[in-house]
Parts: sequence; C-alpha cells; structure tokens
Amino acid sequence: MTATADVLEEYLESTADRRMASYEAFLRIPSVSALPEHAPDCRRAAEFLADDLRAIGLEHVEVLETGGHPLVYGDWLHAEGAPTVLVYGHYDVQPPDPLDEWELAPFEPLVRDGRMLARGAADDKGQVHMHVRAAEAVLATRGRLPINLRYLFEGEEESTSTNLDRWLEQNKARVAADFAVISDTGFFEGNLPAITLGLRGITYLQVDVIGSSIDLHSGMYGGTVQNPANALATIIAALKDPDGRILVPGFYDDVVPLSDADRAAFAALPFDEEAYRASLGVPALVGEPGYAVLERRGGRPTLDVNGIWGGFQGEGAKTIIPGSAHAKISCRLVVDQDPDRTYELVRAHILRVAPAGVRVEVHELGGGQPSLTPMDHPATQAAARAIEATFGQAPLFIREGGSIPVCASFTSILGLQVVLLGFTNPDDKAHAPNESMVLANYETGIRTIARYWEELANLPSSPAR
Amino acid sequence: MTATADVLEEYLESTADRRMASYEAFLRIPSVSALPEHAPDCRRAAEFLADDLRAIGLEHVEVLETGGHPLVYGDWLHAEGAPTVLVYGHYDVQPPDPLDEWELAPFEPLVRDGRMLARGAADDKGQVHMHVRAAEAVLATRGRLPINLRYLFEGEEESTSTNLDRWLEQNKARVAADFAVISDTGFFEGNLPAITLGLRGITYLQVDVIGSSIDLHSGMYGGTVQNPANALATIIAALKDPDGRILVPGFYDDVVPLSDADRAAFAALPFDEEAYRASLGVPALVGEPGYAVLERRGGRPTLDVNGIWGGFQGEGAKTIIPGSAHAKISCRLVVDQDPDRTYELVRAHILRVAPAGVRVEVHELGGGQPSLTPMDHPATQAAARAIEATFGQAPLFIREGGSIPVCASFTSILGLQVVLLGFTNPDDKAHAPNESMVLANYETGIRTIARYWEELANLPSSPAR
Repeated sequence: MTATADVLEEYLESTADRRMASYEAFLRIPSVSALPEHAPDCRRAAEFLADDLRAIGLEHVEVLETGGHPLVYGDWLHAEGAPTVLVYGHYDVQPPDPLDEWELAPFEPLVRDGRMLARGAADDKGQVHMHVRAAEAVLATRGRLPINLRYLFEGEEESTSTNLDRWLEQNKARVAADFAVISDTGFFEGNLPAITLGLRGITYLQVDVIGSSIDLHSGMYGGTVQNPANALATIIAALKDPDGRILVPGFYDDVVPLSDADRAAFAALPFDEEAYRASLGVPALVGEPGYAVLERRGGRPTLDVNGIWGGFQGEGAKTIIPGSAHAKISCRLVVDQDPDRTYELVRAHILRVAPAGVRVEVHELGGGQPSLTPMDHPATQAAARAIEATFGQAPLFIREGGSIPVCASFTSILGLQVVLLGFTNPDDKAHAPNESMVLANYETGIRTIARYWEELANLPSSPAR
Repeated sequence: MTATADVLEEYLESTADRRMASYEAFLRIPSVSALPEHAPDCRRAAEFLADDLRAIGLEHVEVLETGGHPLVYGDWLHAEGAPTVLVYGHYDVQPPDPLDEWELAPFEPLVRDGRMLARGAADDKGQVHMHVRAAEAVLATRGRLPINLRYLFEGEEESTSTNLDRWLEQNKARVAADFAVISDTGFFEGNLPAITLGLRGITYLQVDVIGSSIDLHSGMYGGTVQNPANALATIIAALKDPDGRILVPGFYDDVVPLSDADRAAFAALPFDEEAYRASLGVPALVGEPGYAVLERRGGRPTLDVNGIWGGFQGEGAKTIIPGSAHAKISCRLVVDQDPDRTYELVRAHILRVAPAGVRVEVHELGGGQPSLTPMDHPATQAAARAIEATFGQAPLFIREGGSIPVCASFTSILGLQVVLLGFTNPDDKAHAPNESMVLANYETGIRTIARYWEELANLPSSPAR
C-alpha cells in the first residue's frame, strides 16, 4: 500500500460510522419512481444527493428538470490533461411490493449479517452512494481528483428512463467526456468480482383484454361469451412455447448469433447450475433449447409475463366472468434487436392470435437498446486492474441478462464507450423483497473506485477536452 | 272463473293493502346470511315467517336450529288421499353492496312503476311471501287446502346452504312428500311465463403455480427459469379451445347429449341473439361450436376463469418474473356430470399439461350437482296448466345456466322430483343493486300457486303417505 493509499484508508476507516448514517438516510427516502404518490420523495432524494455533492466539494451542482423526476448533475474539472469521465447512477428505486414478504420495513434500513437491508441498498442507491463517498475521500485527503469527473444521477431508471434521452440530446456539451462509467451492475455468482460487457435491451408492453363492461354471472352467461381471462391465457400461451422458444414471427431475425468464441467465453465462467437452481428454489431450470443457462441469460432474448390480473382474487369462490383481464409482458433483447421493432412484432402477433368475442388493446410501456462493450478497451482494462488491486482477484468478464437502457443511449447519443463497473452481490434481491448489499462489497468498492480514478489518470484524454 | 275462484279473488282484492304492508315488513328485515353482523336479523326474519305461518293456520310451525341460520318449518296435512308437496324457499338475501349504486335504501322497500324495490323483493323473500299469501287466501276462503303442504324455508341459501344437506339427511321423515316445489327461479326474457326444467351444477377450483419463492428480476433470471404466469397461461389455454370446447379428457363423457326434442325446445324459445349481444356490450357471442346460444347456456357445460392474478399489477413497468401465479376456475355442469369427478378430471389435466420448472397445486373450492326435471312429469304439467289459467299463456320450458344446489339435494337425499315454479321478472337484478319484483308477477303468481294446488289435488299421492 502506498503512502497516499494509507491516508485514504485512514480517512475511510475514521469516517465509517458517518458513511453508514448517510447511506441509511439516503435509503430512508422512498424514491419509487413508478408510483405517482412518491414523486415528492424522488425530488427529496435528488435534493439529498445534490446537497451531498456540494458538501464534498463538487461544482456546478444542480437538480435539473426533465419534465419527470429530476436529474442531479455535479462536476469537478480541474485535472488538466487527464481524461474526463461521465459517471452515471440512479437514485430511484423499484416499488417495494409485495410488502408482506419483507422481513423489515423496506425504507427503514437495517444492518444484519454484514449486509445493508433496504429497498435500493444495492439497486442503485448503494452504488451511487459509493461513488460519492469515493470522491469525498479522495478530495478530503488530497484536495483534488486525478481525473475530471461529471456525475449524472437519474430518477427514472426504474420507470424506463422516460425523459433521459431527450435531455441528453439537448445537453450533449454539458456531459462531454472521454467515456462513461455506469455503476448499476454487480458481481458474478459466488460474489466473484466481475465486469459486465453485455447488457440486454428490453421492450415492455401491456395487454388489455376487454369483454363485457361489467363482470358477468358465470352461470347465467357462461357458454355464451368469450371469457377475457381465458382469452388472455390463450394469447400468452401463443407467444412462447413452454420450453422458452418465442413464437412471435420475425422475433429472432435481428439476433446476432453467438460465435464459437462467445460460447467458449460463457463456458469458461465458473458456474454451478445445480447450486443456482437450488438457490432459486425451483424444481428445474427451463429455457430455450440448445443453449446453456448463462447463454440464455446473457446472450439470448426472452419473453416474460411480469404481471397478470383480472376478476376475483379474494378468498373463496365468486362465480363471475371477469369484465376484463390484463397482463404486463416484457422481452429482454440482445444485439442487434431493436425495442420498437420488437414491440411491433409482438403486438401484431398478439392481435393476430387474439380469440374472437373480446377487444384486445396493446400499449408500449417503454424500451431500451441492448449493448455489448469490447473487452480490450483501455478503460475496461484499467477497471480490471483497479478491481484486482482492491478485491485481490482479477474480475470475470460477463454478459448480464438485465437492461440498462442508458448504456445504449450514452453510446448512440453521446458517442461514448461505457464501462460497467458494478459491485453488488448476485443475491442482492434487487426488485424483490428484502433487497440487500453486502457491506464488504460496498466498502471495498469505494476503494476500487478511488483506485480506478488513479489508473485512468494515465490514459490519454481526447484533445477536444 | 268458477264460484270458488270468485271468492278467492274477492279475498285477495280486499286484502291487497294488508298484503303489501306484510311484504314490506318482511323486506325491511336485513337478513343477509353472509354477514355475521346480520345473524340476529336472519333469526328475526325466521321468526317473522314462523309467526306468519301460525297466523294463517299452518300447524307444527317451528324455527329449527341447524347450527347456522335457522330453518322455518310448518305444515298442513289434512287432505287425505291427496298428494303431499314440500315447498322450499329462502328468507335470507345477498349483501346489498355496492350501496352507492342503489337508488333507494336496500332495506326500505318502495313501490315504483309497478314494482316492489328492495333487496330480497324477488330473490327470494318475494316468492316465499307469495306462497304464504296463497295458502292464507285458500285457507281463509275454503277452510282447507286441496293438498297436503309442508313448508321448509331456509336462511343460508345465499351462503352456500352450509347446513341444509346435513339437516335433510337427519330429518327425511319430517319432510316426506310426493314431490318438491322450489320457487327461486323466474320468467324468460321479455317477462314471458316459464318453468325451469334444468339447472347447471358447478365445480370450482383454484390453481396455484409456484416458481421461485420470491419475485425474480426478469433481466437477471429471464431465460433460465419457468415463469409461473406464463406457465399458468399455458395451463389455462390447454383447458379449453378459444371457441369454447373443453379439452379436458373425459370431460364430456357423462354429459347427456341434447336430444332432437331438447334442441327443438331450445329453438322454440323467443330469443333475440343480437339484442342479447348488444346488452352485454361484447363484439361477438362465443361458445361451443355446433350449439345455439341458449343451448350453450342451459344445456352444455362450460369452463371459465373467474379470477387470475400474479406479479405486478400497478401502473407502469416492473420487470419481474412473478414468484407465483394463481387462478380461480369453475365449470358449470349438466346432467349427468358429477362435480367431484369433474374436479378430478380437470385437476389431472392441469397437472398433466403443467410445464416443467414450476410446482402446480390444485384445490377444490366447492361444487353442486346439475339437475333436470322431465317436462312430462304430471306435477310439471299441472304447473303449466296453472300458469296458463292465471297468466293467460302457456309457459315456456327453459333450462337455466345457474345453479341451485338444494334442487339436487332434494333429489339425491330425499328422492323427490322437483318442480321449479318461479315468477320473478328476468330484469329483477337479483344479487345486484336496485333489485325489484314486478307486482303483476307477484299478484298473479299468488293466484297461480292457489290454482296449482287445485290441479295437484287430482294427482295420485304415493301410498306411503
């Protein structure tokens, strides 16, 4: 450990309690972007973050209006000749329901067994908080950063980043950088350090199947009208076979097939299929025939029902034909599938297979492009060195099944290469009850980020900046 | 009109005001059997009815304990050599909610536009009251009844007749009769006089499809696990084709096919298919190919999803694979389908078609036998003559889609043929807000019942009584 590293470490150790208190305060704000009643909480989280950035010495800190939940911007641009990095994260979180499956109140954070438990502890407030704490420690101990930093923290990532692309289009100069770092991914199974190279895209839609305007008595009307819930099941069953192959015509047309090298890279990852199955508590793993589990997750598209509802859901028996039935359905996409084109294909198929006797409506609820980063990019290799130096082992290079639409936006709108540097434990239960962040990942990750800025200081900056 | 009929008519006309006052007093008692807070009201309604029976000259009148809401019994057994009829009705009513859709207070009866408006005006207090008033008029004017009568009025019909079957098993001798009359049905579309010959049975079940113990992130896990909501859709789609034909092996085995005479009877009913479709607001009527709408409703079995749920049902997009998905499913049955056997067939099929990777559980939530009365039964033909003599037109013979489980209980436990003699107008809004009874049906129906006893006096009684 170098002398400067010693000073940084001492600072981080002496401020641990304050850091935890700040992390918890951030998690206490229920910044659920999808629920309109939490709009004031989203704004409160943005203000919290802006105040934090100002307090540690960032400049030009602003809560920026987008038409939806605001962005938070801040920069430090005094490392002349060094690269400029755009750091992205999001302060909004998933809805906490089903509430009765939480072992704690989702917005009353709790440290237990070396983990911080709360909605957002991992995804993504925890990682945003790590970035701010890393910058704080470096500025506090050295008075300056080794690179130029721009922070852009979003408040709509969990509700499809509705307003971000437009804002980026209109503010390209403001976020000019050499490349971008997104911390919204995590480690590999077994909590092994990893850098994510690939992310899936997404298209998300809702199907509404409408019959009579009211629920009908199933005895008096059963046999004479189409049942919207049965019709919805017919539609969903026609989208995908039970093995996982998607039946929508044209769906696979733009999928870039996995090369032999891709398949070899997947096969080289340490992965215990049986342990994975057991951890999920399912009787068997199921997916597209002809592909291994990690390939299906990282390299192949999917179609999943995210929610379904209609008619009577209470205790006992109510004999009705529901007036309507509904489903939320999304597809994860891989390069080079386009979300809008995929939506149109799925929509057309739904309308084609819809049974007679009901009205069927399909609405798009958002989308995001898939992305794939080359492993040999210097900023990726620098991240690998920083991870190895702090976690004590070289990272795996992986493709993730999730989607971070902003990743594709940074490339397509800003022309930036993106490094996905994330630290969450794979069992973080992001989007589920009892979300948690392993505090060892959180703490070491802060050191990794600080080290990463040092590694990057040696890379050339683009002449334009 | 005969001289005796003249005397009866005079009595009924001169007591009309008193009859309305008694009808309203009966409706004012909120005897909602499903709501525990109304248990004292149910008992009050039973006592009201028992007092009424005593006052008009019935004998052995008793409020009988069942463990739930009581039964009311009363008889008049002095017509030696004439048949004995067991008359069934129920004094309990459906809950009145949603209250804000009532144009009046549901338990403050009101006469408007020739109708009595109140909860229970039709289903079934109105019809119970008609029976008592018919007996009153005959006894008051002639001093005797032409047949032997046993009344059995129930207080739990609207909450699945929980205690009735056991009571019947234990009290067969007490309700011995030549046949039973149930007045809990009504007239055909257009308020055309009708006798119901068929009622459908029912079997009701719940399917639970369980994947991981928690909702999973659809990006991180999509493509590797079976989705319980997709799996549920696959299961439901395998139960019935989109046209309405049920795909469960063996499902139709015990269905008695419609004979040419049955089909001719359905075809003879005046029915405006387009008006029916328009009233439901659906784009098309859908059902089992090869059968007309009324055949599908009254003479063929069905399978309907009554409710479905799983995963995210809120606004916007939540990217999860639901941990579980659920559906309530029921089948309406026709003779000779057995509810328990049908449940086992459907259950076995569900388990057979369930996709891999999920656990599937099926639970029975209740059932009831179908019933069908032969049109040529002398007691049915007598009822038809009584209707024609009083309403001025011969009744239609119809089959209803709904279920009255007590009908099958009378046959299976007591061995009695059942005549479904009901007088409610088809737009009575039973079970819904603003329930009403057309007073012309009520008044003429009282005359029909009195006339029916006369018609029956000529039928042979069984030697055992």
